[in-house]
Amino acid sequence: MHAYRSHTCADLNSSHVGQTVRLAGWVHRVRDHGGILFIDLRDHYGMTQVLCDPDSPVFTQMEAVRSEWCIRIDGEVKARDADLVNTRIPTGEIEVFVRDMEVLGAAAELPLMVFGDQEYPEETRLRYRYLDLRREVMQENMKLRSDVVASMRRRMWDIGFREFQTPIITASSPEGARDFLVPSRLHPGKFYALPQAPQQFKQLLMVSGFDKYFQIAPCFRDEDPRADRSPTDFYQLDMEMSFVEQQDVFDTIQPVIKGVFEEFGNGAKVDQDWPQISYKDAALWYGTDKPDLRNPIRMQVVSDHFRGSGFAIFAKLLEQDGTEVRAIPAPGGGSRKFCDRMNKFAQEQGLPGMGYIFWREVDQGVMEAAGPLAKNIGPERTEAIRQQLGLGVGDAAFFLAGKPSQFEAVAGRARVVIGSELGLTEENRFAFAWIVDFPLYEADEETGRVDFSHNPFSMPQGGIEALDGDPLEVLGYQYDLACNGYELVSGAIRNHIPEIMFKAFAVAGYDEAEVRKRFGGMVNAFQYGAPPHGGCAAGIDRIVMLLADTANIREVILFPMNQRAEDLMMNAPSDPTSDQLMELGLRVLPQD
Amino acid sequence: MHAYRSHTCADLNSSHVGQTVRLAGWVHRVRDHGGILFIDLRDHYGMTQVLCDPDSPVFTQMEAVRSEWCIRIDGEVKARDADLVNTRIPTGEIEVFVRDMEVLGAAAELPLMVFGDQEYPEETRLRYRYLDLRREVMQENMKLRSDVVASMRRRMWDIGFREFQTPIITASSPEGARDFLVPSRLHPGKFYALPQAPQQFKQLLMVSGFDKYFQIAPCFRDEDPRADRSPTDFYQLDMEMSFVEQQDVFDTIQPVIKGVFEEFGNGAKVDQDWPQISYKDAALWYGTDKPDLRNPIRMQVVSDHFRGSGFAIFAKLLEQDGTEVRAIPAPGGGSRKFCDRMNKFAQEQGLPGMGYIFWREVDQGVMEAAGPLAKNIGPERTEAIRQQLGLGVGDAAFFLAGKPSQFEAVAGRARVVIGSELGLTEENRFAFAWIVDFPLYEADEETGRVDFSHNPFSMPQGGIEALDGDPLEVLGYQYDLACNGYELVSGAIRNHIPEIMFKAFAVAGYDEAEVRKRFGGMVNAFQYGAPPHGGCAAGIDRIVMLLADTANIREVILFPMNQRAEDLMMNAPSDPTSDQLMELGLRVLPQD
Repeated sequence: MHAYRSHTCADLNSSHVGQTVRLAGWVHRVRDHGGILFIDLRDHYGMTQVLCDPDSPVFTQMEAVRSEWCIRIDGEVKARDADLVNTRIPTGEIEVFVRDMEVLGAAAELPLMVFGDQEYPEETRLRYRYLDLRREVMQENMKLRSDVVASMRRRMWDIGFREFQTPIITASSPEGARDFLVPSRLHPGKFYALPQAPQQFKQLLMVSGFDKYFQIAPCFRDEDPRADRSPTDFYQLDMEMSFVEQQDVFDTIQPVIKGVFEEFGNGAKVDQDWPQISYKDAALWYGTDKPDLRNPIRMQVVSDHFRGSGFAIFAKLLEQDGTEVRAIPAPGGGSRKFCDRMNKFAQEQGLPGMGYIFWREVDQGVMEAAGPLAKNIGPERTEAIRQQLGLGVGDAAFFLAGKPSQFEAVAGRARVVIGSELGLTEENRFAFAWIVDFPLYEADEETGRVDFSHNPFSMPQGGIEALDGDPLEVLGYQYDLACNGYELVSGAIRNHIPEIMFKAFAVAGYDEAEVRKRFGGMVNAFQYGAPPHGGCAAGIDRIVMLLADTANIREVILFPMNQRAEDLMMNAPSDPTSDQLMELGLRVLPQD
Repeated sequence: MHAYRSHTCADLNSSHVGQTVRLAGWVHRVRDHGGILFIDLRDHYGMTQVLCDPDSPVFTQMEAVRSEWCIRIDGEVKARDADLVNTRIPTGEIEVFVRDMEVLGAAAELPLMVFGDQEYPEETRLRYRYLDLRREVMQENMKLRSDVVASMRRRMWDIGFREFQTPIITASSPEGARDFLVPSRLHPGKFYALPQAPQQFKQLLMVSGFDKYFQIAPCFRDEDPRADRSPTDFYQLDMEMSFVEQQDVFDTIQPVIKGVFEEFGNGAKVDQDWPQISYKDAALWYGTDKPDLRNPIRMQVVSDHFRGSGFAIFAKLLEQDGTEVRAIPAPGGGSRKFCDRMNKFAQEQGLPGMGYIFWREVDQGVMEAAGPLAKNIGPERTEAIRQQLGLGVGDAAFFLAGKPSQFEAVAGRARVVIGSELGLTEENRFAFAWIVDFPLYEADEETGRVDFSHNPFSMPQGGIEALDGDPLEVLGYQYDLACNGYELVSGAIRNHIPEIMFKAFAVAGYDEAEVRKRFGGMVNAFQYGAPPHGGCAAGIDRIVMLLADTANIREVILFPMNQRAEDLMMNAPSDPTSDQLMELGLRVLPQD
């Protein structure tokens, strides 16, 4: 017989009754029922009930075991009495009577119980991660993550992509975030950087003729702490293709992402239709470029109904350039209590408030528009608004006015809260949308200085001529995939023509020398016959979080840093030795 | 029609004749045959001949294109005349007459030609890697690497392993090499390290109950330059299993490795029988712990034949403790010229030389043992040696004497040269052997100080009692896989019992506090019910090198560093900005 096990703890059932078996695993729980010990023995695969009474030659040893000891037992498979069968686990028909045992690894007093649902502070969980990971939900989360990544790989291979590993110790890739630096020993005083993304390398792969690349790629950013992201690194399904247009990238990656959500979505509805929404429409309709489309609410411009109306605040505002009034329709929100609560929400978010109208039935079949706004603008305008928004008795609408950039984000959040509070947002569903036509540039509100709004590597729509006009009107072949309010994927068709690239950078105020300095590797390469190419990157941590239904990224990472970017289990970061510093030619400055 | 291509450059054959197609790719070669342009258009998939004459509306534009321009063409598929069919390529039956074209990416003057076999200095190749990678052999090497890694993953999944990603920004993992450090910005003066291997994390995964782990893992070591290794990082197929003994690990990984060699070995013979050879026998028989078993030569101890013999040098030597005479049999090496050459080889390698005997036919059926050694020890001893080694006319034997540690390595290299020069080493074959029973400790020749010989995490054979005796006699459950003279895999059954671990470290002179400091994460974990576990790691770069039949690791890495650990294409390492240094709380010391 094998030294440690003849079966796993998920293998045995009534067909094994009478056999002598060997199992190994962890003592999940010990119960002493009047001289009979019942032990749930657990391994990665499942749980088997083993028992022992004074007739067993190893009863005394079995009495000594405690939770989380790792043991090996030999015993005889017995059928459970019909009324003791546990139908919730595959081994519930049997139990194993212990005849021999061996302690493989004893356990000291536990700082964290694996059995049960007790909550522990995150610091405890991370310090004793090896115990925390033994818990069922963590085992499931990590298996899920591993299986999602494996499925992504299979799907990418199946459509003709090869995975290529790009360098991890490399040069700075100025993606906008902060690099992690790595001092060089052979070149003291010089530093490598960990890649923020394989962006330049994947483009170089296209220039190298590789046609279809993907990689499950670690990306490193020295980020300030935030609950939903790792302060050090994250993983992307990164892909790039040559000789493609935007729609080709969508047609390629959409089945992959959809397939993964269908495979691991636990039966949740996965939308088959993924609309393409322009960045501008997304901002107008949803107040965000990552809308949650499970929420059916779509905002509308209702400026005309307020222009010159009796509601002086809005009417005055509308006289200024670039102002608008937008409405958030709220079907089913037609009560003063609800409207007041939403108004208060907007105030908490830093706005003066949200005006509202709601429609109620005053008499059988007689509808009334209530709220101060309705009174101010009068019944005709109120009715026109109602008709535009398609609302009726029991519904409400909220109004925000001013420069959209000043209220859009709050409007977007209000839409989410309204959808959720009114039960409009469908649960158990994954709703996707491609957000397209991102502006290539944005202007700093204060200085007016124009800079790239996202990614400097995107091809401008309309080619080089487009760069001669108003930079803020230039759209890029750049896109995101939004799902349930999160950005899952981001990508672009790249600017592969040096002439257009230098001009695009010039518009943002970078001269050729600066571009060559920052992106020299890529820019040089584009001189030697670069193919048109594009691609995208999907956030794996985020996808797994959605599938595991958790909002904390540390629930889907094996050994995460805490929010101060420390690994408490391994003691990182830590003090270097003076030899190490000397070899690197570095001195640590005294902190004050 | 698609904006860039209706087919790839490998798609078209006689079934497409008459169709109008669109192709995109690189101009591989242009030939002008008296007013008719023939262009080999190349993409990732293959090559198609396109042609153009003055009848084409784009003849002038086509005349302008040069090698490595990226272009799109539209044209008509035509059958080639029977005598012009090229059977070496899938598209050899057809050619495409160009009716329209577009330059997608022009190319400046090339520093490196893709077409042809011209050799370039490595610096040029690395600086313009995107051109170098377009060459057929590099495309094939990179595809091979990608396919090997994909195959490894599939094979590991198929046998129930899951891939888990362990941290890349973490604490130092003292595997014996130098760490790459990463300064922390949030904790100025403290440093993370890049993992030399996921050793501790994979063991922690076993303690966490994950049972079967693997990872295609990047490993980072700050190594001094050497031709056959990367100065910064390499990849391993890393795996670990719980509740296993040594043979279980062999039975698990052997089919994976064998399968990969069978799949990608290009028809080379893959040995089905993988012998297990003890470290001691390997040293004796092959003079190395990574023997090339394609070479049938096995060394033997022949001390007794020289003890008290007329060959005073050996006889004297043998009077000292710990000395031996070993013979390298050389079937077919029986000529003075060959023997002298081998003797010279040994001298070049720093030994005084190798004595030899060779056997020749002096008269029909009369054999003579030649060489000074034979004369000195006389015919009886010479004949006894011949019989022990199983040699005859036309063969030779070489002799080395002294302390094995002083000649073993040269003997091993001599065995390789002899096998190769005499044509004994079978080409086109992969021969594997598990090297087992490594000593756990070794003593420094000068100080006598005992330290771990390889990996401090291995379980000693014989358990804790074994540590009470002579440390140099303790064997570990530690193993390597050798293939064709390279170490492909290394692994061990781990020491998972804190008591045995502390004792094993104590033997090497590390007290408990030191062990806790260096390996705290893992040692703490072992207190909480650690399972017996073991595993191994296979060197992916090395495996791909063997399969690609190259001795230069940079031929199988996309974007390698040069031997001074510089990336010439991306300009790494480079000077940090003073802001970066300030944020990290570091100062670069002036170099002199």
